[in-house]
Amino acid sequence: MQRSYFDTAVPIAALATVPGESALAVIRTAGKGAIELAASCFSRSKALETAPSFSLVHGELVDSVAHEAVDEVLASVFRAPSGPTGEDSVEFSCHGSPAVIRRALSLLESAGFSPALPGEFSFRAFLHGKTDLVRAEAVQELVSTASEGGRAEALGRLEGGLSRSLKESRASLIEALAEAEARLDYAEDDDSPSGGIEPSLILELRDRLASLSSTYAASRLYAKGARVVVAGKPNAGKSSLFNRLVREERSIVSPEPGTTRDWIEAGIELGGFPIRLIDTAGLRDSTGQVESAGVERSRRLAAESEALLYLVDGKVGLTSEDEAFLALRPDAVHIWNKADDPCCGACPPGFLRVSAATGDGFSELAAALEEALAPSFGRAGVASGTSETECAMRVASERQKLLLDRAVSSLDGALRAMESGASLDALVLDVREAADAVGEITGEIVTEEVLEAIFSRFCLGK
Amino acid sequence: MQRSYFDTAVPIAALATVPGESALAVIRTAGKGAIELAASCFSRSKALETAPSFSLVHGELVDSVAHEAVDEVLASVFRAPSGPTGEDSVEFSCHGSPAVIRRALSLLESAGFSPALPGEFSFRAFLHGKTDLVRAEAVQELVSTASEGGRAEALGRLEGGLSRSLKESRASLIEALAEAEARLDYAEDDDSPSGGIEPSLILELRDRLASLSSTYAASRLYAKGARVVVAGKPNAGKSSLFNRLVREERSIVSPEPGTTRDWIEAGIELGGFPIRLIDTAGLRDSTGQVESAGVERSRRLAAESEALLYLVDGKVGLTSEDEAFLALRPDAVHIWNKADDPCCGACPPGFLRVSAATGDGFSELAAALEEALAPSFGRAGVASGTSETECAMRVASERQKLLLDRAVSSLDGALRAMESGASLDALVLDVREAADAVGEITGEIVTEEVLEAIFSRFCLGK
Repeated sequence: MQRSYFDTAVPIAALATVPGESALAVIRTAGKGAIELAASCFSRSKALETAPSFSLVHGELVDSVAHEAVDEVLASVFRAPSGPTGEDSVEFSCHGSPAVIRRALSLLESAGFSPALPGEFSFRAFLHGKTDLVRAEAVQELVSTASEGGRAEALGRLEGGLSRSLKESRASLIEALAEAEARLDYAEDDDSPSGGIEPSLILELRDRLASLSSTYAASRLYAKGARVVVAGKPNAGKSSLFNRLVREERSIVSPEPGTTRDWIEAGIELGGFPIRLIDTAGLRDSTGQVESAGVERSRRLAAESEALLYLVDGKVGLTSEDEAFLALRPDAVHIWNKADDPCCGACPPGFLRVSAATGDGFSELAAALEEALAPSFGRAGVASGTSETECAMRVASERQKLLLDRAVSSLDGALRAMESGASLDALVLDVREAADAVGEITGEIVTEEVLEAIFSRFCLGK
Repeated sequence: MQRSYFDTAVPIAALATVPGESALAVIRTAGKGAIELAASCFSRSKALETAPSFSLVHGELVDSVAHEAVDEVLASVFRAPSGPTGEDSVEFSCHGSPAVIRRALSLLESAGFSPALPGEFSFRAFLHGKTDLVRAEAVQELVSTASEGGRAEALGRLEGGLSRSLKESRASLIEALAEAEARLDYAEDDDSPSGGIEPSLILELRDRLASLSSTYAASRLYAKGARVVVAGKPNAGKSSLFNRLVREERSIVSPEPGTTRDWIEAGIELGGFPIRLIDTAGLRDSTGQVESAGVERSRRLAAESEALLYLVDGKVGLTSEDEAFLALRPDAVHIWNKADDPCCGACPPGFLRVSAATGDGFSELAAALEEALAPSFGRAGVASGTSETECAMRVASERQKLLLDRAVSSLDGALRAMESGASLDALVLDVREAADAVGEITGEIVTEEVLEAIFSRFCLGK
C-alpha cells in the first residue's frame, strides 16, 4: 500500500546522493525518534543520542542482529525544530559503494525507518514552515539545472525574493478584502459600490502579476535550453562552425555531440545561457537532393529556434538563395565564413567575418549570439548584466504561471465589476479568488492533493 | 605541471560524490588553512572560522568577486589532528546540481584550493597516521564493491585485522633480527650460527605469510565475481533457467542481462557471493551447427568457470552426450529440468529436480550453487558461515600478495641458510628482506614512488 505524504509520524530514510562508486554517499533520515532509531544502528549509540544539534559523530553502522559492522560512517545530527526538515534528523556519510548503500538502507529499514517518498524531506520542511512551495520548487529546479544561468535563476528563487513579492501582493489583496467584507457585513447601504477597494490598487497588482506570468517563457528556456540552429547552403561550413562552437565553449552541458532524431545536436553554454546547438548539415546531405524533406525539416527547425546562425560561403559570395532566406529571417546572425581563405570575398556590412577553420572572429560571433538570445532569456542584453533581483522575480513552474494567470483573470473580472458598477459581492468574490490563487503559489493556502502532486515529482532523498 | 602527492602544504578540494542530479552532493576540502580559505567563500565566515571540530554550520557559498551566492550549503568542520585526513578540513554538502558543483569547485579553486589528485585525501590520512596502506586499499576496495560479500571482506580489512596481524609478524622478525645483529656486531666468535634466531619461529612466520598469500585468489573473486556457466544440450532450458535466476536473485549487480562478447552474461549475487552468470545457449544457436566454434567456446567457458550448472532435459532423459560431459565435469551441479511437464521422467539420484518454467526447486538449486562456490571464495561452506576474523585475514590486492610472496621466499632462503650452516650475515640479510617486504604491505616502510603508484589508482575525492 502506498504510504501518504501526510503520515508525518513515520521516520523516513533515503539515499540523497547519486548511486554509484564514489568516495562518499549520504543517507538522510528524518522524523520523530529518528535520532534514537539511528542510534540503535550505531556503534556509539550513546554518543549519537546525546549529540547536540549540528554536530558530527564518528562511528560504525552496525547490524546488531547479524553482529556485523556495515560501514564506517560520519553521522550529522540535527534536532527539532532546527535542521533541514524541522524534525530530528541524522545524515550518514558512508563510503560510496553500491553494496554499502544497499546494506545500510536495509539496516535502517529493519530498525524502523520507512523508505522516503520522492520529495518527502522537502514536503516535511514545507509542513514545518522551513520553506514555502516556491522555494521548495526552486530546490528541485536547482538540482536539475545544468547551466550557470539556470543555477543563478533557481538560487534567486530559493533565496525567497519571488516568495516575498507574492506574499506582499496577497497581503495587499487581503487587506483590501478585509475592509470590503466588513462593509458587506455591517453597512449594507454603503454608498461606495467598490467597498473601499481602490481600482488603482487592483490594476497595479494585476499588472505586477501579469508581468510575473510573462517571465515564465524565459524560465522555461533556462530549464530546457534555447534552440540555436546553424543554417546555410551546402559547403558553407555549417558542421565546422558547429564543431568549433561545441569544442570552444568550455562549459559543455552534454560533452559529446550526438545524433538526435534527424539532426546533430549538442548542449553548450554561452554567457550562462543553456543552448541546444543544432547542425542542419546532415539533413540535406542524407538525401542528397536539394528539394527534399530534409530541407523542409531544416526550415521548420529554423522557424522553431530562439536564434539562428546563418552562414554564407565567403568564397562563393551572397547568392539569391542566401538573400531569400535572410529576407525571411532578418534576425539571424549573419556570418561570412571562410575568412582564412585567400579567395574569400570582402565581408558585406551586417555580416560577421569568421573562419570556422581557424576560429577567427569567434569571440565576436559568441557575443552576437548572446545578444541575440538575451531577449528570449528575459534579459535586457549582455552589456547591462542581470541583477539577482531580476532573476528572483521570474516564475519557474507551469503551476506557478497557471495560478498567476488565474489571479490576473480574476482581477480583470474585479476591474470590470468596478467599471460596470456591479454588486460589491461580485467584486469581493473576484478579489478573493485572486488572493487564493496567489496564496496557492507559495502554499499559504493549498489542498492536500496539490501538495502530493507537487512533491511526488521531486527526486528521492530530497 | 602535475602536482605531487608530497605537496602536502597545498589545501585541496574535490567532489566526493557521484556527479549528477540528486538531492545532495559533497565537496571535500582539506589542508593547512582549509577552514580559513573555506570561510572566505562562505556567507557566515566568522561562524565557520570559530566552529569547533566535528560541527556543522549552515550558510551560503558566496562568490565575493561576482557578489553572488552560489548555493545554500551545510559545512562540516574538522580541525587537525582530528577529522578524516588529520588536517583542517571543511566538507560542503551542496544541492546535487551539475551547475552548482561546477561553480562551487571553481569558486574554491579561485579561493586557493588545488583540485585534489585521485586518492589524495587517503594519501594524507596515511601520511598523518590516520590509516595504513592495507586499510587505505580496503577503502578503495569497499567503494568499488558491488556484492554484500565483497563489502564484508573490505570492511574487515578496513577495521584493521589484517594490518594488526602483519604488524605482529613484522615485529617478531625485527625482534629476532635485533638479537642476531647485536651478536654480529659484538660477538664474532659466537658459537651459535643462527645468532639466536629460532628456526621454528621463522618456519611459523613463513607458513603464516604463505597462507595469507594463498587467500588472494578468493579476494580476487570477490572483486571480479565468480563465473558460473549454464550448460546443457540445446532445448534443455538453459536460457529459461538463466533468466529466472537473474530475475529471482533480488540483489542483482547489473540489472539488465546484456550480450557480452559472444555470450549472455548477467551479474547476480547469491549468499553474498558476486556471480557472473553465463548463458551458453546463444553460442550453439548462432551457428546452428553442433560441431562448431560455438561449442568449442562453450567448453572453454565451462573449463574457466568457478562453477557449472548442467541441465538435462527431463523429458528427453540422460543422453550419452550428457553423460560424456558430466564424466568430464563431475563437480557440475546436476539439474533435471522441466519437472513441471507431465512427460518429465523420474529424476535420477544426484540430480536436482527443478522447473525453470515455474521456479520449482530453485531454492535447492541456489543452495547447491552456493555450496559449490564456497571453496572458491575460501569459505568452509554455507552451513558453517564465516566469521569476520576470517574475512579480515585475506589479502586484497596483487601488491599485497606479491610482497607476501617475496617475504615467504626470503624466509625460505633463511631456513635453507640455517639448515646448511651458512654465515649469520646471509641469514640476517634474508630475514631483513622478509621484514621489509611485510613492512611495505602496511606502509611502515615504503618509498615515495610506491605510495604515488598506490594512491593514484584511487578515485577522486577519496
